[in-house]
Amino acid sequence: MPYRAPVGEFQYIFDHVVDLGKVAQTPMFAEVTRDVTDAILSEAGRLSEEVIAPVQRNGDLDPAVLENGVLRSSRGFAGAYAQIALGGWVGMAADPEHGGMGLPMTVATAVNDMMSAACLSLQLNPLLTQGQIEALEHHACPEMKALYLPKLISGEWNGTMNLTEPQAGSDVGAVAAKAVPNGDGTYAVTGQKIFISWGDCDFTSNTCHLVLARLPDAAPGTRGISLFMVPKLIPDAQGSPGVANSLKVVSLEHKLGLHGSPTAVMQFDGATGWLVGEPHKGMAAMFTMMNNARLGVGVQGIGAAEGAYQHALAYALERRQGKTPVVEGTGCIVDHADVRRMLTTMKAEIFAARTLALSCALAIDLARATDDADCLARAAFLTPIAKAYGTDTGIDVASMGMQVHGGMGFIEESGAAQYLRDVRVTAIYEGTNGIQAMDLVGRKMMDGGEAAFRLMDEVEASAEAARGILPDLAIAVWAAAETLREATEWLAAQQMNDRFAGAVPFLRGFARVLGAHFHLKAALAEGGSGPRTALATFFIRRLLPEHVALLAHAREGAAGLYALSPEDLVA
Amino acid sequence: MPYRAPVGEFQYIFDHVVDLGKVAQTPMFAEVTRDVTDAILSEAGRLSEEVIAPVQRNGDLDPAVLENGVLRSSRGFAGAYAQIALGGWVGMAADPEHGGMGLPMTVATAVNDMMSAACLSLQLNPLLTQGQIEALEHHACPEMKALYLPKLISGEWNGTMNLTEPQAGSDVGAVAAKAVPNGDGTYAVTGQKIFISWGDCDFTSNTCHLVLARLPDAAPGTRGISLFMVPKLIPDAQGSPGVANSLKVVSLEHKLGLHGSPTAVMQFDGATGWLVGEPHKGMAAMFTMMNNARLGVGVQGIGAAEGAYQHALAYALERRQGKTPVVEGTGCIVDHADVRRMLTTMKAEIFAARTLALSCALAIDLARATDDADCLARAAFLTPIAKAYGTDTGIDVASMGMQVHGGMGFIEESGAAQYLRDVRVTAIYEGTNGIQAMDLVGRKMMDGGEAAFRLMDEVEASAEAARGILPDLAIAVWAAAETLREATEWLAAQQMNDRFAGAVPFLRGFARVLGAHFHLKAALAEGGSGPRTALATFFIRRLLPEHVALLAHAREGAAGLYALSPEDLVA
Repeated sequence: MPYRAPVGEFQYIFDHVVDLGKVAQTPMFAEVTRDVTDAILSEAGRLSEEVIAPVQRNGDLDPAVLENGVLRSSRGFAGAYAQIALGGWVGMAADPEHGGMGLPMTVATAVNDMMSAACLSLQLNPLLTQGQIEALEHHACPEMKALYLPKLISGEWNGTMNLTEPQAGSDVGAVAAKAVPNGDGTYAVTGQKIFISWGDCDFTSNTCHLVLARLPDAAPGTRGISLFMVPKLIPDAQGSPGVANSLKVVSLEHKLGLHGSPTAVMQFDGATGWLVGEPHKGMAAMFTMMNNARLGVGVQGIGAAEGAYQHALAYALERRQGKTPVVEGTGCIVDHADVRRMLTTMKAEIFAARTLALSCALAIDLARATDDADCLARAAFLTPIAKAYGTDTGIDVASMGMQVHGGMGFIEESGAAQYLRDVRVTAIYEGTNGIQAMDLVGRKMMDGGEAAFRLMDEVEASAEAARGILPDLAIAVWAAAETLREATEWLAAQQMNDRFAGAVPFLRGFARVLGAHFHLKAALAEGGSGPRTALATFFIRRLLPEHVALLAHAREGAAGLYALSPEDLVA
Repeated sequence: MPYRAPVGEFQYIFDHVVDLGKVAQTPMFAEVTRDVTDAILSEAGRLSEEVIAPVQRNGDLDPAVLENGVLRSSRGFAGAYAQIALGGWVGMAADPEHGGMGLPMTVATAVNDMMSAACLSLQLNPLLTQGQIEALEHHACPEMKALYLPKLISGEWNGTMNLTEPQAGSDVGAVAAKAVPNGDGTYAVTGQKIFISWGDCDFTSNTCHLVLARLPDAAPGTRGISLFMVPKLIPDAQGSPGVANSLKVVSLEHKLGLHGSPTAVMQFDGATGWLVGEPHKGMAAMFTMMNNARLGVGVQGIGAAEGAYQHALAYALERRQGKTPVVEGTGCIVDHADVRRMLTTMKAEIFAARTLALSCALAIDLARATDDADCLARAAFLTPIAKAYGTDTGIDVASMGMQVHGGMGFIEESGAAQYLRDVRVTAIYEGTNGIQAMDLVGRKMMDGGEAAFRLMDEVEASAEAARGILPDLAIAVWAAAETLREATEWLAAQQMNDRFAGAVPFLRGFARVLGAHFHLKAALAEGGSGPRTALATFFIRRLLPEHVALLAHAREGAAGLYALSPEDLVA
């Protein structure tokens, strides 16, 4: 079944659950009226359905390859990308000064959701460019901005992130690539980078690498890392792609999925680079880029979940098997209780993960538009949750989608398996979900849990508001927020490694509670009766209870993990 | 890292957790002394490590293919299979009358666990033959037994199961293949069968298909299905493979994984077949075969989990990344709390799933050896749990194994992804895990839950026995059994579709409680202190609590699932 963009779903969420109106009321985003948002969502939805989704299978069946050192992308990708660029979607959230649409991140997140669902491996290309645009907007000098931003925003050029080296993955501080001043303001960048998504591209006229490397006088660790712009083709005096830089794609990885997205090993051999921001402050610049890229990757998970859900639902609506228990039903497997359970779980999880990601985006927009410190802290706090929960949801939903297909799910022809293969990496790249959880209980709780407690206050307030109309659900959500509060208080008082020991279950438990909160809001908005209330009831009664075990797990501490020695693990 | 067969683990389990002694005390299995078991386990372990494991990657990199209608198996499979056959492992549980080893299913299950871990796609071949041997032992006439059993048991020939047709998957009653009497005691079998694992084989001299089909006078549905033996080559007067039968492999499926195991579309065009058992009683015969095949598939999940766990642990023991919190530790990622959490979860889940499968096998053996009705009911009850929990564990552990690998996990070269791709089908074939759960709450609870309650009595009794030594854990397990009892009582009193609505979470909750029970037994056996106690503590404190939410979910009933219409799901 072809992908159908859930435009109406985003409109409902913006009207009733994640209040886009708050963003539109700020001077910065005053032009983002309801009409504008509707038009944007419709057009992005149409593009996703008609142009991007049709190339999704190509990415799998006709992977990106390196032919004599030259990249050849999947069939149809160039044409679909051209439409994305032409529509201005690469620069949708970028500053209008350089040609961007200036849309709030909240709307851009909805667009990324749809484009991810349509074709994850192609969408990753503009997603990376978006991150680069943001990094340059914040950290580049005016000349660099003037040279690169218009080209990146128009989609003429694409951008990549070059962080990882064989010995430096989660531990970015171990980066060894070197940058030596050339004496003319440029630097000679040397080193090998791995896992570089879209490290080359045959449908843009230049590929701009942001590369982490060390200056000769750099301190060890993360404090000695600088950020460099290293373009594939060095811009000439007119800003057009000129001579080839001293860098190359050594090879492409053979991956589980996402075959349409080339993952490159890059070799820089004294390549000409330009410093972005201050010397030795590369990590700060990279974090700007990574924070929003993390939200973007969480949204990739949600989009893939939506695609997998629609795919499985279509199958369940046409596959006949066994007598179903529904009188005058569809006659198809959708009417079997266990299939209905799987599909409803998928839909309920997608809603929870999506509203969570959109509320994170909303906090980013409000922080930017109002300079509100609480919004900033909220955005920072929600980012790792949105990333990990969005991508976990992508994987779980894709796997459940295969299960709905029965035997056909394991056959590649059905397309169900591709969703699982493609989305699996999202729990790994941009910081594994374990790293996200450690960020949450570590850096993001350096405030003693304040940002977390403000979220719980909000959950409890809206549960209070729901007591009249949906008392049972309201009480369940309120009690869950209290359990979460206790777990947060406990964690905030522990040594770091005890927090880390419970980080992943804590993040998941937190997401369960927030998901219930958003479901409850959606149910209230339809007056406590109707399909959104049915979905909220499903989530709150059948899925929310998991938070108890997750948060109990979160409070177990580290000692029990080390009670088994490495030798015991081997035995 | 090469696979290391956990021989000592099985010995510990047999001595302290799943009492193999009970089986050895029966006259039927009197020869299965501790020495014999040790020798069997060691030899199977050696074969798995040295002969089978080395071909595992070949199955993936050099898949089985059809070349001009002729199957070519993966490189090395023929040689490894020859060793399996030569060792007598195909017929290890078969009747010695026809050349079998006559081992109890409990020991055979341990062997299947190791061989699955070593190479799932090759092990599937003898596993299917084992099922066929059992079906023939129970249902074939003496002449058919004499002709086929020695060849199947020796591994000279292999066996397949031909159930599924495009319109008949979970609904076996929809089978349309026809069998028309030829007038000479044979039948002409015609029809198409799909998803036939090892539907052809180039390292056995014949492939024997057990085919479900309908006689001309058959009633509709499952009551009109008969079972036929349809060999690829018709045995001549001497019982040697003779002329080719009228059947062929039309094509092989392109699957997510398990590429070493050819999955065939089979076409039977008036192929000569022999009736197995009574006319129209094919389902009963098939169920014999399927019940034990289900346990076998559950064990495939566990074996794959063990393989994935060892693979991930080896990586965690050599990969250095970031400063770990352990003073004088390994310096490797195994010392990070979250990595330790993942590895310990994997190990704890494998132990739980493995002991559960072995206790199911033990019940099968005792039922056979003593004709005890309680043992029979216990075996029947545990089979769907062993299948679903074993395979869910396989998938979860394989996915966690990828996560431990970080970015390398997504790269096929690391081998981590293959475990996930290979094992994913085990939750689907031999009856999806949803079907298993429906079997559990439906057919297996037609006794009003008696078999279930007997298990809970046992859990509570052993929790009582543990109160002195491990009071906290004992109380937790006892309370969990009570919660399970209440959920079981509730389910047993409901209409069937309300049971089905909660079937999957009920099965998972049940497995959580049984897993805790076995962990507690293992901890007690080491006196309540040591690595098994540490692992039991991990499982009972961090994973067992999930049973509360699962069993609450199980008691929600069907109405909430149908509160959303198919149109609501689409919206």
